Amino acid sequence: MLINGFNAVQEALDADTTIEKIYIEKGAFSDKLRKIIKDAKEKKIRIFYLDKKELDAMAKMKVQKVLAEITEYKYFTLDEILAQKEKPHLILLLDGIQDPHNLGAIIRVADCAGVTGIVIPRHRSVSVNDTVIKTSAGATAHVKIAKVTNINDTIRTLQDKFITVLATDMEGQLIYDANLKDDVAIVIGSEGLGVKALTKKLSNGIISLPQYGKINSLNASVATGIVLYEAVRQRM
Amino acid sequence: MLINGFNAVQEALDADTTIEKIYIEKGAFSDKLRKIIKDAKEKKIRIFYLDKKELDAMAKMKVQKVLAEITEYKYFTLDEILAQKEKPHLILLLDGIQDPHNLGAIIRVADCAGVTGIVIPRHRSVSVNDTVIKTSAGATAHVKIAKVTNINDTIRTLQDKFITVLATDMEGQLIYDANLKDDVAIVIGSEGLGVKALTKKLSNGIISLPQYGKINSLNASVATGIVLYEAVRQRM
Repeated sequence: MLINGFNAVQEALDADTTIEKIYIEKGAFSDKLRKIIKDAKEKKIRIFYLDKKELDAMAKMKVQKVLAEITEYKYFTLDEILAQKEKPHLILLLDGIQDPHNLGAIIRVADCAGVTGIVIPRHRSVSVNDTVIKTSAGATAHVKIAKVTNINDTIRTLQDKFITVLATDMEGQLIYDANLKDDVAIVIGSEGLGVKALTKKLSNGIISLPQYGKINSLNASVATGIVLYEAVRQRM
Repeated sequence: MLINGFNAVQEALDADTTIEKIYIEKGAFSDKLRKIIKDAKEKKIRIFYLDKKELDAMAKMKVQKVLAEITEYKYFTLDEILAQKEKPHLILLLDGIQDPHNLGAIIRVADCAGVTGIVIPRHRSVSVNDTVIKTSAGATAHVKIAKVTNINDTIRTLQDKFITVLATDMEGQLIYDANLKDDVAIVIGSEGLGVKALTKKLSNGIISLPQYGKINSLNASVATGIVLYEAVRQRM
């Protein structure tokens, strides 16, 4: 969703709405604009400067000097996820899911499986946009999702709190032999590349699903569902 | 895919290509056409008679009297699925999946889980069309899929062969307590309506996934993946 004009953008900043990007008309200048730029920088929101023509064309409307691209989803922090009292934790780390339909389906099954929360990276990953919200069938309203700058830092933070981090990959320990009963965070890789090498190295272990087919590649949301429900089964 | 003209349609009939429908120009008559109608009736292919104008408009080309709508997928028969020697059987009955992306994802996870075969109904279900083939990531080339007129008749046939038929639904036996080790066929309902009442009644039992969320509705392909992999786990 795009919001247009000083007041609307300032309100979004004050309300801690998730702002993906801010676009400003090249050469525009005012106190209100200076305040927006200052607040946006503090919140590490990316700012782009465009010609008035480009700005109007992109927005498909007359832009009043400044435009913000927002999603209505309000992310949680990792601390808010970890503050949940229900134990053991079951945390999902998504290492760069690209397809909004996959992210939506993952959030949906994560809700059903009762996860503690989901962590997605700020870059090289789809955000909780309108397609994700729609595909999740409403689950984005119930599952806590955090956006972090660096998934590997998150892994270290979780390990400091004695949460076991397990990456999913083709060649690892059979998932049915892994302990998913205690506090655990599961790393799911991107659709094309899987979990990154460094992330796998940082993890406490690698888990795999047995595969009997000729194709042996599972859709990311289906694989996530199977892994989460194995944790559910072990915890019953 | 549409194929156009007497010779192409007759070839498709001879090659046992999966023809979904045949369209014939109203009032057209010839020996070649009579042979096509005879062969089509034997194969129980539906024939529609249209005005030349309608036919050309539908095909977006000049139709030479006869047109066939084909899919390049060649279905198996239920007997061919049951003839497989690998045991125990793990058969998937899809009771009216509508979305080709769901069907593709289901075929993909079915391949990974090593199912014996998949049965889909001829009517009120998406067929193995181009989108399904693409979404399955190639798995349609490896998983045996049969198309039947009546899923309930299939259930009776399977039961006659001592295969337990379990329908998935919200309120049933916990899947982890169900026996999926022996020959079993699992019924997955359509996205909107689930498994039909009569089909549930005919089944030997109802199985459910535990759900801890606020939404409690799983995507059909994710739910199928979880159920199939519980069978895989029990059989290891």
